[in-house]
This record gives sequence, structure tokens and C-alpha cells, in this order.
Amino acid sequence: MNSIFEQGLPRNEANHAPLTPLSFLQRSAEVYPQRLAVIHGELRRTWSQVYSRCRQLASALARHGIGKGDTVAVMLPNTPPMVEAHFGIPMAGAVLNALNTRLDPETLAFMLDHGEARVVIVDPEFAGVMHKAIGLRQSTAPLLVIDVEDELYTGAVQRIGGTSYEAFIASGDSGFDWQLPADEWEAIALNYTSGTTGNPKGVVYHHRGAAVNAISNILEWDMPKFATYLWTLPMFHCNGWCFPWTVAARAGVNVCLRRVEAGAMIDAIKRHGVTHYCGAPIVHGMLVNAPEAMKQGLPAGVKAMVAGASPPASMIEGMERLGFDLIHVYGLTEVYGPATVCAKHVQWDSLDIGERARLNARQGVRYHLQRDARVIDPHTMQPVPLDGETMGEIMFRGNITMKGYLKNPAATQEAFAGGWFHTGDLAVQSADGYIKIKDRSKDIIISGGENISSIEVEDVLYRHPDVLAAAVVAKPDPRWGETPCAFVELKAGAATTAADIVAHCKKHLAGFKVPRAVVFGELPKTSTGKIQKFELRKKAGSAAAIDV
Amino acid sequence: MNSIFEQGLPRNEANHAPLTPLSFLQRSAEVYPQRLAVIHGELRRTWSQVYSRCRQLASALARHGIGKGDTVAVMLPNTPPMVEAHFGIPMAGAVLNALNTRLDPETLAFMLDHGEARVVIVDPEFAGVMHKAIGLRQSTAPLLVIDVEDELYTGAVQRIGGTSYEAFIASGDSGFDWQLPADEWEAIALNYTSGTTGNPKGVVYHHRGAAVNAISNILEWDMPKFATYLWTLPMFHCNGWCFPWTVAARAGVNVCLRRVEAGAMIDAIKRHGVTHYCGAPIVHGMLVNAPEAMKQGLPAGVKAMVAGASPPASMIEGMERLGFDLIHVYGLTEVYGPATVCAKHVQWDSLDIGERARLNARQGVRYHLQRDARVIDPHTMQPVPLDGETMGEIMFRGNITMKGYLKNPAATQEAFAGGWFHTGDLAVQSADGYIKIKDRSKDIIISGGENISSIEVEDVLYRHPDVLAAAVVAKPDPRWGETPCAFVELKAGAATTAADIVAHCKKHLAGFKVPRAVVFGELPKTSTGKIQKFELRKKAGSAAAIDV
Repeated sequence: MNSIFEQGLPRNEANHAPLTPLSFLQRSAEVYPQRLAVIHGELRRTWSQVYSRCRQLASALARHGIGKGDTVAVMLPNTPPMVEAHFGIPMAGAVLNALNTRLDPETLAFMLDHGEARVVIVDPEFAGVMHKAIGLRQSTAPLLVIDVEDELYTGAVQRIGGTSYEAFIASGDSGFDWQLPADEWEAIALNYTSGTTGNPKGVVYHHRGAAVNAISNILEWDMPKFATYLWTLPMFHCNGWCFPWTVAARAGVNVCLRRVEAGAMIDAIKRHGVTHYCGAPIVHGMLVNAPEAMKQGLPAGVKAMVAGASPPASMIEGMERLGFDLIHVYGLTEVYGPATVCAKHVQWDSLDIGERARLNARQGVRYHLQRDARVIDPHTMQPVPLDGETMGEIMFRGNITMKGYLKNPAATQEAFAGGWFHTGDLAVQSADGYIKIKDRSKDIIISGGENISSIEVEDVLYRHPDVLAAAVVAKPDPRWGETPCAFVELKAGAATTAADIVAHCKKHLAGFKVPRAVVFGELPKTSTGKIQKFELRKKAGSAAAIDV
Repeated sequence: MNSIFEQGLPRNEANHAPLTPLSFLQRSAEVYPQRLAVIHGELRRTWSQVYSRCRQLASALARHGIGKGDTVAVMLPNTPPMVEAHFGIPMAGAVLNALNTRLDPETLAFMLDHGEARVVIVDPEFAGVMHKAIGLRQSTAPLLVIDVEDELYTGAVQRIGGTSYEAFIASGDSGFDWQLPADEWEAIALNYTSGTTGNPKGVVYHHRGAAVNAISNILEWDMPKFATYLWTLPMFHCNGWCFPWTVAARAGVNVCLRRVEAGAMIDAIKRHGVTHYCGAPIVHGMLVNAPEAMKQGLPAGVKAMVAGASPPASMIEGMERLGFDLIHVYGLTEVYGPATVCAKHVQWDSLDIGERARLNARQGVRYHLQRDARVIDPHTMQPVPLDGETMGEIMFRGNITMKGYLKNPAATQEAFAGGWFHTGDLAVQSADGYIKIKDRSKDIIISGGENISSIEVEDVLYRHPDVLAAAVVAKPDPRWGETPCAFVELKAGAATTAADIVAHCKKHLAGFKVPRAVVFGELPKTSTGKIQKFELRKKAGSAAAIDV
């Protein structure tokens, strides 16, 4: 029998509402209508204006017949229409599919087809590639193409659509009576994985998860109201780790940025008093390595988030010299971007830089409102002991986890087997509960029956002062099965030799982990900046072996 | 037909978890095990220790047969067992019923019966009254009575229970495998309204609302990690506005306080570096009016929240002199404590104190994660125009609203009529959307057909320099129907006369709003510090009329 607390006390309109980041925009527009919301070049828009424009966008989409469960794709850099897309599209009930602007027409065509996009909004910089992608679509369903105009775009303009973005916005009603989703489990966004093998998978985000991750970002950063956020992280990447919604919740300022360059970043930070930004290590590296004159006058205390690779000691030191506060997070598209954080402890402040770098290089602990992040043995589904030694797979469960993969029930079931989301990343967990990635399961090198973590070898390579970037993959070996092969990108002007690299590794690694081949040159990267190990594996076979 | 985003993408253990503040404790204990969680006199406990003790409490309750939907009452001041009750009891699946320690045995007996409490945890200070209350129960069901011991309690000790709290905790398992609620809609707490007429109503809170309001507290205050929170607000009052859960989410410090006195508060703020506290106006008044010597050395920048009445200009000025940052919130038991906030704007800083006091006296805008707060015409259920003139009733909807009233479907339905929670408070809404209370519906005075807001008259009375407290109620009048009758408590040593008060009111109010009777003396207060207008109404009839 139900307890007295379950009798006659159901959910209703008065005591229950869907959790959705759309409410964040509405509240900021109501409470802080005159506060600055968007900066783009000389353009300034308040929260009231952004809200009006998002209602117009939703209204215009609705008039075009777009509604619940329809997909609206966008091919946009970090510009005002991209901010608006994160609200106006779901305010129409539709699903935002932010396309990776670095992709080729074939892949984009696949996404338009697979996601069943009915509308695509295109920045002029990507009109050419999108025109090709549209031509390559299999689908014959109508597709409304909307051309964005941007004064800050200086290249040649090719109009590929039937309407301009501003005309489309103008056709909408700024008083549009948009509705919250009927259920917070409804989809808000579709994000394709970069997929190094096979077709990209379409990761579906729900309103609840988007709201909860956006709030977790605030909690991690102690992010105050009216924070000024610089858009160095692409919004097409996990919806900018949910920060478009975070910034709205804080009535903060979105400082847009068409292109990530040291000069533009530093200028924006100084001019607009930027307080927060995110990015891959390369973004922070641009700041650290910028000319001293350029860095003069940078404000202290800017908070930065890094993901994608562990921040090396040199970067941590460089950020400290700038007076910036760097925090290391880890996640994947499937968990809305960051879903663990290497939460710092005051005791770490007094440690030497090497030890601090080691501690901060860890992926850390679950994000604030995520239920759980554990390293689990995928066979037994039991958590590994907290010994810093036993390897398992990083798994997540909780509200900051996707609905699943679009039109791919097999992959969805596999990803959620046993009630946890399987990341495919191999890791250990220390006594303090902090997770440390050892490798992607497919990147482990097995040499003479011993497992070698490619990341461990890479970490050592990064400690060499002349190394700009490094990747280690397996090289087939008749005797050992596999041996580690290092691909190294040196800093400009460096004259380091393979023998130097090997000698450096021998100082820090067990003998069987030392690379048996070293290849110098620029490393191939994916559209999201990840090093393409599958390309390196193809080359490793022919790399010259070194007798170590 | 369902859209592609609804096909094969259901909730499961991996991507959905109940929202509950219990997760906040677990995360802080895991990530910051050694950080200070509780201060009580010389006692110090870390988050790891508090979590262990809460698991023991949950385990001991479970061994006693307490589980889902069972009520555990507590009669506790703001001490460590009260903090633990907010976690250990719901970790057993049970519902926390924090009793108002100022109540009489009859009312407490009613609550124990109505809430069907199976356990009650009692502080020694309240053993006497609780012993009587237990004797007055109608129910013959067994009731486990647990006696708390507290070294900081200096009065006579009377043991009324079968076990001590520490023995009960010690009997539990610190590794107890507690479970999240199966559904975030499950009850977490039961809070009785003070009920000036009829029996108190039992307001039921759910896990989702508790989590969401606790987070909203953080968002309003930009409350950083590791904040130090002083327990001036009783935790039995709307679960301390959800702050036990807020402090856990921030891995902050609970500075316990048995009794709210200027000396103890100021000492705690100085010694422990308190950063945040809440309270009724009288709490802030204690600080402002404390002797100058006592206030020496108070840190600047302490954040304070006030509710229960608008902060008068003198209090705002006094807090500013202290260097404290005061924010005005409004709410009711039914909405988990604060559910609107008078969000400040930088433009207000340059206004004179009178204008700032006027702006800050408003109840403001919806709390961060509450869906809506509006002034609505209760007959048409339409929002009133934002003209600052048209009266309506303050109504709420969203996740920071109770499940309903326990075992009272009629009152629940009435409270939620039309899909909004009806507060019974009459208000207007200004052009900027800010809500301003005019009166409780039953406190409006109707004189010659004109509505008089008792609050408007009280605000004027509070502006008189000699007035410590004031309340205005209707006095029956043969000619006008009703006239305003003022009850005034003067500051020590003041020699103000009724004629002075009337003259002061005439300067600030339309003639028909000026009190026709002024009665001096201490004002009767409810157990939560509210002035008991129903007592004053009884006296108003016999108050001497003044010819104005």
C-alpha cells in the first residue's frame, strides 16, 4: 500500500515543471532585460533583445511547419546566430543539430540525411562546403537553407539558400507564445561523434540533462552572475559543453569569436573583461606562448577549463604566470562535454610543479550533478579497487548522460549495458577516488604480453622541452607482437634527434615501454583537434626501428 | 507517431537518476572528505565523518524497521544532530518532520498524531515539552523516543526516551548501502504551517524540489565552494530554507548555534569566518544594534538573506555600515522557503537610501529554478497588468512547490486551483516585473469602501525613528465599517505619543489610511516570530479611538 505521502499528492501544473535551459533565457530576459548578453565585433545585444530574437526564430520556424521532434541543423562558428540557435530552435519544439564546421561535404551530407534535417542555417564561411553537402544528400525531402550574413566575415560571399537569416528572424513574432517541452526527456540537441571508424553516431541530448550540466558548470566554477564568457570552445562541440545555457543562467555575456587566434583572444579578454573560457590544450597554449608584449595588461584571475588531454606541467606553469586559474575536466559527447573534473585541493598549492602537474593530469571525480563516475571492470561490472593500479573502463551514470544514439538501438544498448554508460576509456582510480585515464581500449599497446599505456609514454614525451605534440601507437613486431612507436612534432627550431628522445624516455620509463621507433613531423588531427591515431597506425608499420 | 527522437531512447539506469540533495552529501564526502562540515562549540566534524554518521543513522533507523514513507520527527535546535537528520532520515527512505521548538505540547501532539511519527529525536532543552506532547498523543502506535545529549546545553537534563542519540548512531553501520529514492517525487520532509487559525497543515516536500531549491540558493548568492554558513535561521523552518542541503552541495561549513543572540552570532562570525547567514529582520537587527565594541573586527562582505518582512531603510543602512550584503527574499512553507528574490541591480547603488529601501522592500522576482511567480487575479486567473497598482494574489508554479498538504486533499486542491499555488498574499507587480506585497488577503482593511493595505501603514510606522515594531489591523467602526488600528512597540526609552504617531502618518499617508487608534506595548508573536495579528484584532475593538 502507498504511504500517506503518496496519497492524493500527484504532480500537477502548479508543483511540477520540466527542467529545461530554455527557462534560463526567459528568467534573465525578465529580471535583467538591459544587461549585455552578446558581443560580436561592434555589435551589442541585451538579454531582452536576445530573448526577442529567439522568440522570433522559434516563431518563424513554427510558421515554416517546424515543430516537435524536427531537426534544424546549423553550420555556424561562434557567432550570435549560434547563441540564438541554442534557444530559438528548441523553443519551437525542434532539435538543434550543430554541425562540426571542419567536416567534409560527404560527412555533412550523411548527417543531414541521418538526422533528417528540415532546415539548415549556414554561415557564409561554410556556404561552399554546405552547398556541396546539400548536393550530396540522399534524401529528397525539402530542406530550407538559410544564409547568415556577418559583417565580420571578410571572405567571398556565396548565397546558397532561399532566405537570409535576418529576413527569417524578421518574419517571426517577438511575442511568440512558445511552450516548455511537455516532458523534460524530450530531445533538445543532436550531436554527431567525430567517429574515427565507421559512420558518426548521432548523440541525442534531453532538456533535463542540458539544464543539469549547465548548472554543474556554474557549480564547478563558482561562476558568478554576469560572468563574461569568451567563446574559444566551438559551440558545435557538445553544444559548447552546455555553456550557451550556462551563460544564460548567469545573465552573463557571450563574447563571440569567429576564429581562435592568440591576438583576437587576448584582445577580447582585455577589452571585454573576460572572466571565463574553455578549450583544448592548444587554446591555452596559444595564450601561454603568445609574445610577451601581447600579454601585457591581461587581467588576473581569469578562469579556464581544459579538456581533451591532460595539461602538461609547462602549461600549468605558463597559466600560473599569466595569473589564470586552470581546471582540468574530462568528458565525451555522450555526457554533454565535461562529466568529471579534477577538483583541486588547497593542499596541492604547496606542492612542487611536477607533483601538481601529476595530480592535475588526472580526470578526477564526477561532475557536480552527475550521479556517478567510476572505473569498472567491464566483464564483472564491479568497480576496480582504488589502488591506482587496477585498470578498468571509465563509466558514467546519471542525468548528464545522453538519451542514446539516434536510430541506432544496437549501439545504444551496447553503450548502456549493465546500467552504465561505457566510455571505452581505460583508467585506474586512486585511493582518493580520482580517475586517471590510461588509454582508449583500442590504443593500448601489447608488447611481449605486457600492456603499455600509450598515454603514459606520451606524458613522458611531453615532458621533453622540445616536444610540441606527441602520439604513441603500436608498431607490429615479429618478436614482441607490438612495440611502441612515437610520432613527435617538435617546437620550431628544435634539433632533437630520435636518440635524444629515446634517451629521455629511458630516464622515465621501464625499458619495454620505451619507443622502438621515433617519427618526426606534424601530427594529423581530427576536426575537433584530436590526434588521429588511426592515421599514425597506418604509418607505424613502415617506421624505421631503433635498436634500444 | 513519435518522432525519431522518441524511438528506442527511453530513460534507464545509465542516463537517468532521481534528483535529490542526498547526492550532494555523498559527493562532498567523496571529493572533499577532510574538509570541515560542522562546527559546534569545540566539536569539529569533516564531510567524511558527517557522511559516515548519516549512514549510521539511516542504518539504525532501517534496523528499527523505519523505511519508505515513515515519518521521523525531530525536536532540535540548530545542532549537529539536526544537520544529520536532513540526510540520515531520508537516506533510510523516511520523511523528516522537523518540529517547531517553540510550540506547545498540544500542538506538538497534534503533529505527532497527524504525521504518524514513528520516531522522535529530542534535544534536552525540549525534553519537558516533548514528554508532555507524547503523553497527549491520541495514537497508541509505538513511538521510539531518542534523547540527544549536548555538552553545550547547560539546563537540567530529563531523559524521556529509550535510547540516547549517540548510542543509536553507534548501533548503525557506517557502510550502510543506502539507496537513492526510487522516484524524485518521493517525500523528503514534512513541515507544518504555523496556522494562525485551525489546525496546522502538513506541507510535504519532495526530493526534486529540495534539490532544486538548494541549488537556487547557490545561484542567488553566487555561493562559492567551501562557504561558511551560520545557522541563525531555525532548521525547523522550511528545513532552514533548504540550506542544510545547499551547504552540503558546496562542501561548506555548518556553524551550529543553539540560540540566536548578538554576542554568540558575532563571536561565531569572527572566529569561524562566516560568509553567509539567513534570518528574519530581527536577526539582522540584533547585529546592527549590537554595541559598537562587540562589532569591532567583523569581517566585511558577509552575505545575509532576510525574509518575513521588508527590510526597513534603517536596517539596510545599518547593514551597509557593517559592510554586509543584504538580500531580500520572500516565500512560504509551501514553496520551500524563499521562492522570490528582490534581485538587485547595479543602477540602484547610486540611489539615495530611501529609494533603495523602497526598491529592496519589494518581494521581487521568481527564484532561479522556480518556473514562475506572478500576481494573478484569483477570479479570472489572468496576470494583473504590470502597473504597480492593480492588486492580485501572488501565485507560484514550478518545481519549488510542495507535493501538497498531508491527508488534506481539499486544502491541496484549493491551494493548487487553476494550476498555480495560491499564497493568499495580495500584491501588485511593477513595470519591471517585481512583485510588491500589499497584504495578506485577510489583513486588508476596508474603510468606507476603500482598501487599505495594513503593510503600507506599517511601512510608514517603521519609518518613525522611535518605532521598534508595528502592526496595523482593522478596528470595527460604525461609520466606516473598519478603520486602521496601530499597535506599536517603541524602542527603549522613547517617549513618543499617539498624537506623534498620527502626525507622522499624516505626513506620509492619505487621510483615510491614517490609524484611528494607536496602542503601545509589546507585540504578540508566533513561534516563528511573526506578529500575531489575530490576537491584535481581538484587542482592536476596545482600543480608544482618536479623532484624526
